[in-house]
Amino acid sequence: MARPTRRGRAARIKARTDAPILYKPTLNRNVGPVNLLSEEGIEKIHAAVLHIVENIGVEFRDASALEDWRKAGARVDGERVRIGRDLFMALIGYIPDGYKFHARNPERSVDVGGANSIFANCYGAPFVYDLDGIRRPSQLADSQNFLRLAQMSPAMHVAGVLPVEPQDIPVPERHLDLVSSALTLSDKPIMGSVTSEIAARDTLDMLRIVFGEEHLEQNVVVTALLNCNSPLVWDETMLQSLRVYAAANQPALLTPFLLAGASGPASPLGGVAQLLAEALAGMAYAQMIRRGCPMVLGVALMGVSMKTGAPMLGTAEPGLMNLLVGQMARFYGVPWRSCTMWSGSKMADLQAGYDSANAMWPVLLGGCNYIMHSAGFLEGSLGVSYAKWVQDSHQLEGFYRFFEGIRSEDLEPLLGDIAEVGPGGHFLGTDHTRENPFVVNTLQNNDSYEQWLEDGAKSAELVGAEEARRMLAAYAPPPLPEETAAALNEFTQSRRQLYRA
Amino acid sequence: MARPTRRGRAARIKARTDAPILYKPTLNRNVGPVNLLSEEGIEKIHAAVLHIVENIGVEFRDASALEDWRKAGARVDGERVRIGRDLFMALIGYIPDGYKFHARNPERSVDVGGANSIFANCYGAPFVYDLDGIRRPSQLADSQNFLRLAQMSPAMHVAGVLPVEPQDIPVPERHLDLVSSALTLSDKPIMGSVTSEIAARDTLDMLRIVFGEEHLEQNVVVTALLNCNSPLVWDETMLQSLRVYAAANQPALLTPFLLAGASGPASPLGGVAQLLAEALAGMAYAQMIRRGCPMVLGVALMGVSMKTGAPMLGTAEPGLMNLLVGQMARFYGVPWRSCTMWSGSKMADLQAGYDSANAMWPVLLGGCNYIMHSAGFLEGSLGVSYAKWVQDSHQLEGFYRFFEGIRSEDLEPLLGDIAEVGPGGHFLGTDHTRENPFVVNTLQNNDSYEQWLEDGAKSAELVGAEEARRMLAAYAPPPLPEETAAALNEFTQSRRQLYRA
Repeated sequence: MARPTRRGRAARIKARTDAPILYKPTLNRNVGPVNLLSEEGIEKIHAAVLHIVENIGVEFRDASALEDWRKAGARVDGERVRIGRDLFMALIGYIPDGYKFHARNPERSVDVGGANSIFANCYGAPFVYDLDGIRRPSQLADSQNFLRLAQMSPAMHVAGVLPVEPQDIPVPERHLDLVSSALTLSDKPIMGSVTSEIAARDTLDMLRIVFGEEHLEQNVVVTALLNCNSPLVWDETMLQSLRVYAAANQPALLTPFLLAGASGPASPLGGVAQLLAEALAGMAYAQMIRRGCPMVLGVALMGVSMKTGAPMLGTAEPGLMNLLVGQMARFYGVPWRSCTMWSGSKMADLQAGYDSANAMWPVLLGGCNYIMHSAGFLEGSLGVSYAKWVQDSHQLEGFYRFFEGIRSEDLEPLLGDIAEVGPGGHFLGTDHTRENPFVVNTLQNNDSYEQWLEDGAKSAELVGAEEARRMLAAYAPPPLPEETAAALNEFTQSRRQLYRA
Repeated sequence: MARPTRRGRAARIKARTDAPILYKPTLNRNVGPVNLLSEEGIEKIHAAVLHIVENIGVEFRDASALEDWRKAGARVDGERVRIGRDLFMALIGYIPDGYKFHARNPERSVDVGGANSIFANCYGAPFVYDLDGIRRPSQLADSQNFLRLAQMSPAMHVAGVLPVEPQDIPVPERHLDLVSSALTLSDKPIMGSVTSEIAARDTLDMLRIVFGEEHLEQNVVVTALLNCNSPLVWDETMLQSLRVYAAANQPALLTPFLLAGASGPASPLGGVAQLLAEALAGMAYAQMIRRGCPMVLGVALMGVSMKTGAPMLGTAEPGLMNLLVGQMARFYGVPWRSCTMWSGSKMADLQAGYDSANAMWPVLLGGCNYIMHSAGFLEGSLGVSYAKWVQDSHQLEGFYRFFEGIRSEDLEPLLGDIAEVGPGGHFLGTDHTRENPFVVNTLQNNDSYEQWLEDGAKSAELVGAEEARRMLAAYAPPPLPEETAAALNEFTQSRRQLYRA
């Protein structure tokens, strides 16, 4: 077989540089979902969920939410809310089974729910591993870079809003920079700020500038990420943001942060029952704010090492729990969200590769609709590596292809090829081979050892960093009407002055 | 949460060193298999398989095999054998749907077929990446080291025979060293040599010394690996070995080596039809040698980059093809074998981690029974890295746990725990948490960044190499009766003299 030549490689790199980006639409899965539970198993978990919301209860640490629950007929003792099963199931029943998630460029809009999956950017890391692999606190320039990379990555459907935490910007102003960056550096769907009620309101105001008031009123143009303090606590900050988004008919990923063995039981069935109760209680509350507002059942799931107390990522039991959550989300008829491509490693190394892939497979097999942190995480989720971000984003295209499944093919011409090639021949020159190239990951090195040595004996980490540099140098912002850009700018300027006053 | 301390780490390492090895029995899968084909899809591929064997034919480049086929009623033109569907299906029908694979230590015997999966050692690499990561030609000492590591790895079910090619030993003698090493350094099931008819016969003679003549006659004590030269050629060397093993009622993994786009069509359906025809034709032939002899449908599947001609490992389409092969193997009622944990990378790096995991998931999801190359491969399959071997073998335990699936659990005490812990509490101290630790990979680093720095900022590659050193230093050979060892030694000495004469 022909070995690659230097000229071949140079040509490949040039092709990569010059080729237009072929954006992937929403992934419509044709493999899975894998269901582990029998009807009886589903009923058992459902009964546990009802037991938790009805008898144990969930804390809503927010006066307004408690008042809402009281009015709706739930039993409220202090901050503990116990929700009768009829009320609970009635509220859950209002949640749509999916939604169209609008981008400011309609060609980048995606679908959430059902057999659809979308990949979303990483979120919230306080540290970056920079282009030289050096770890340092994240800055706004990094957040913006990861938004640029998301814009350029064919299978990264959602640009996000807070890929990393910009520690050089004062907290009250961060959302202004982040939301305006997301809206200008990318034309893909974005996420919303949840730092505070004000941040949520400002996010919606900026979205109104870009999408128009009416479009926002009628469509989903943002999705927020809200964490439950497991076990069983929804805090005031999260609930305030939830009310803002729900009132505007914009969804949130309501996400218990379940460290199995610490913030929940070290039991696949018990842990899942708890997180479902937590997430669904939040989703139910949102229906009291605005009936029929889309909401997403969230999961952030890790194991905890009983030997060290450290969270473990990409391991077996949280993988199984993802399959359970997926099946239960289908039972409740709601879309669901999970986390992936993360690792406890402090380098983009072998462990990071295993952990990331081992986190993604169960999430996709479980039929996850909204896949967060699809690129970049190291160090649990405390760091984002440029090199790994870019390598991960290329992995997404492979996952995308696998989960598209098998296309129907006419076997007759292929049998003709097999007959014609005959025993001992080869298929490199057949029309079918030329017309049906398999997915190629341009960052995956399959060269000979000698060729690889000659090209500098580069690790995948170095290859990823080089590609990140290339992409950032090649980045071109998507078009945005000048008056929109000006209005956004005016808005952020005036708010910034207000918050500094 | 408590961070790990140096004392904790030292204690963990000591525990790892001193703990007895808890060998995993055969994995009985409770997740999957994932079926992609409808009844109609199965029939379509089956029809293509029949078309290939009946009308295109398979070459058997061996006079004896051609004579056998002629006598059986196949149409033989030169070396091309065309097998009528009735004869073909009748022969396939004799193949058992599984077998018990005996180890010399009965506690290490495993089951092949059905919902069972076993992990087998790597095979045949001409190069090693040694304990310092240096690439060099493999030697017998390396082959023996990988047999030792296999013996010590809880989830590595099959020790193998030729983990790497010992280039310091003359070819006619290699099998003597390899088979006797496999039989003495490990008490797990071993594989057979297929270098030549003589090598196959010697393998069986050595097995007779260890297992006894009668035990071998009545049980499967070895499995050989035989490659088909795709497209559509079974060569003389392979067929000679096949006859030796089949005559002794010992199975082989009959394995087309399918580079989709080169040695087969770049089509999931077409490529699978071809490889099924190839493997099944070989399996059918074995039934003419000994009716009812167990045989395994083999698959070695890679994509080929249409841009460079290089094989691509761990990519999407070969993954999908594994699912198809699994479904068709179940249709034909035969066990099947595939390849995994391989990568085109030349380092145990991020790419190696992705590729290895991405190769394993579809193989297990497809319900593969006999999983080859479960640890160590780099550089396509040309090199085996000590560091990666050990890291991969730890990954196997995670895969094992995932595919065991969900255990039934009594949720009532867990709901009691959730009630008792209550909102905002933690589960670190509950009985359930203490008694039900999740799978922990002791080589997976989940420490804090600071702790990791303090411990030397080690990559997973370095951690793997260190663990390989530790294991090899701690290795103790399994007991073997002195007279058996002496008889083996006498046999290999006398044969060696014979072949040198």
